Amino acid sequence: MKKLLDDPADAVTDSLTGFGLAHAGLVQVHTEPVYVSRAGGPVPGKVGLVSGGGSGHEPLHAGFVGDGMLDAAVPGAVFTSPTPDQIVPAVLGADSGAGVVAIVKNYTGDVLNFETAVELVEAEGSQVATILVNDDVAVEDSLYTAGRRGVAGTVCVEKIAGAAAARGDDLGAVTEIAGRVVANVRSMGVALTACTVPHVGKPSFDLPDDEVEIGIGIHGEPGRHRIPFAGAREITRSLLDPVADDLHLAGGEDVLLFVNGMGGTPLSELYVVYGRARGLLEERGVTVSRSLVGNYVTSLEMQGASITLLRLDDELRELWDAPVRTAALHW
Amino acid sequence: MKKLLDDPADAVTDSLTGFGLAHAGLVQVHTEPVYVSRAGGPVPGKVGLVSGGGSGHEPLHAGFVGDGMLDAAVPGAVFTSPTPDQIVPAVLGADSGAGVVAIVKNYTGDVLNFETAVELVEAEGSQVATILVNDDVAVEDSLYTAGRRGVAGTVCVEKIAGAAAARGDDLGAVTEIAGRVVANVRSMGVALTACTVPHVGKPSFDLPDDEVEIGIGIHGEPGRHRIPFAGAREITRSLLDPVADDLHLAGGEDVLLFVNGMGGTPLSELYVVYGRARGLLEERGVTVSRSLVGNYVTSLEMQGASITLLRLDDELRELWDAPVRTAALHW
Repeated sequence: MKKLLDDPADAVTDSLTGFGLAHAGLVQVHTEPVYVSRAGGPVPGKVGLVSGGGSGHEPLHAGFVGDGMLDAAVPGAVFTSPTPDQIVPAVLGADSGAGVVAIVKNYTGDVLNFETAVELVEAEGSQVATILVNDDVAVEDSLYTAGRRGVAGTVCVEKIAGAAAARGDDLGAVTEIAGRVVANVRSMGVALTACTVPHVGKPSFDLPDDEVEIGIGIHGEPGRHRIPFAGAREITRSLLDPVADDLHLAGGEDVLLFVNGMGGTPLSELYVVYGRARGLLEERGVTVSRSLVGNYVTSLEMQGASITLLRLDDELRELWDAPVRTAALHW
Repeated sequence: MKKLLDDPADAVTDSLTGFGLAHAGLVQVHTEPVYVSRAGGPVPGKVGLVSGGGSGHEPLHAGFVGDGMLDAAVPGAVFTSPTPDQIVPAVLGADSGAGVVAIVKNYTGDVLNFETAVELVEAEGSQVATILVNDDVAVEDSLYTAGRRGVAGTVCVEKIAGAAAARGDDLGAVTEIAGRVVANVRSMGVALTACTVPHVGKPSFDLPDDEVEIGIGIHGEPGRHRIPFAGAREITRSLLDPVADDLHLAGGEDVLLFVNGMGGTPLSELYVVYGRARGLLEERGVTVSRSLVGNYVTSLEMQGASITLLRLDDELRELWDAPVRTAALHW
């Protein structure tokens, strides 16, 4: 295993230390316990937004801490849920008195640890609403979940709920908006190669040179099936059709199309997939008015991509467009 | 070879088509011949900025077309120089009458083809100044160059010259600023794995599982030497020391530290390298006042990274900070 790391046991903290130094104007990295908060602390009167989950999906979530998005992020060990003792100070620190929305990807460990943390935080007098993200249409239950997994759609939830909080919505309103995104966002991914967890030192699974895994999870969990590799057009269709069908997308509707890289795939290939997806959506009479293409919810160095569609309405579109200033999203 | 492409012969145009659709507000993609220009055409009275080179380094250069950076980018085939017939319309289209600066990475093919194109353009009455970028300290001459190669420092040249043009500097002043960046920027890279050119279909070189290539070029050209893999700390030192020494960096000086990913390395590892580089610069008494971390000048899916240092002065710092709105850099 060759990785730009030293002791694999320090992979997460070494990376966060560099991240904190590179973005000192945006974030503060805490180490005991580990979490990342917005530089300057919570904004008075604003609803706080906190997310978290296993590391290995960078820039998710720490890359989305900043103006117009998250107030704190809680990174666990690689592909491992953060613990309640990390989540509690992150949530308390994000609460300026207006309450906190916790955005949790639907994995059993994340859900349980956030539940425990929220109970402890509420005992301190903070109000917390939890939003579960479960956008992955690939499988109903999986290795680490009851119900669908939360994947790249999480970026849409964090961006749009973050904008709602930034414009001054109260806890109920931010929660409603976040829920509306969850209800209208779906994703599915493909793996061309496996990834290697640093402290394991070998690839998470075997994938033959001529096959891809459709419906892969962001931890390399099994997907729907393996198919012979047959080019971008066919792979794009095998991802886009289930996503669009699950959303019951109709002609005339407007979506955000998000092509996400798994970490090891060149940006140029993500744009090929984006172009193919645009063609398929055009065939359905669906308009794409907003786009995002890049590596935002990754699986270490896995090669592959996911397609996310978010059904837009005027308010979601306006909140997506609202200014954001974080390490990974900035406009 | 598994890549998210269809016919490898169409890799560049398929990717550019997707890029153009995803960023329709920023860029216009031309196909006969292939080049990318800023949406809305050149800004009246502003010096035009054009760059180009082989594809496979995305987001370089098309990802830097937009407000505050390039007016046009000319992508060749993968790892192949663009031809004069592509460069000519890109340069002519970028000229609002104030002249054009052509930013060319120092590779023999790029230099020759830009020279030919500039002669043709000048015959049409446009004034063009050419800036050669040769920031790679790894080797003096190499597979594709006389003199040093141009690598990730190109992003610094394009950003800062772009800001100078945007604030209204004339052709001479933009050229002077671009030259000042070239004189003060140095880079060196490492490969952990090779990459595969789509129309070749097999890795460009062999690299054993326990070795890395120090001083690699962005096309997989040989570097200085191979060393046993020994972790991020040692690799960072083997890149940073030659770069800082070549710049004759002295204690008390201020730099931009840019850790660039080669495409297949997780962002989390780039932050580890960034943190290690910060430590080494601190030992030298050098201040890091500006930072950039991410995949900006890539080699397809190669795993590895490069370190770039730019010696800053007040004007370069101000121009780096100036607003930019492109697909790949936005603040």
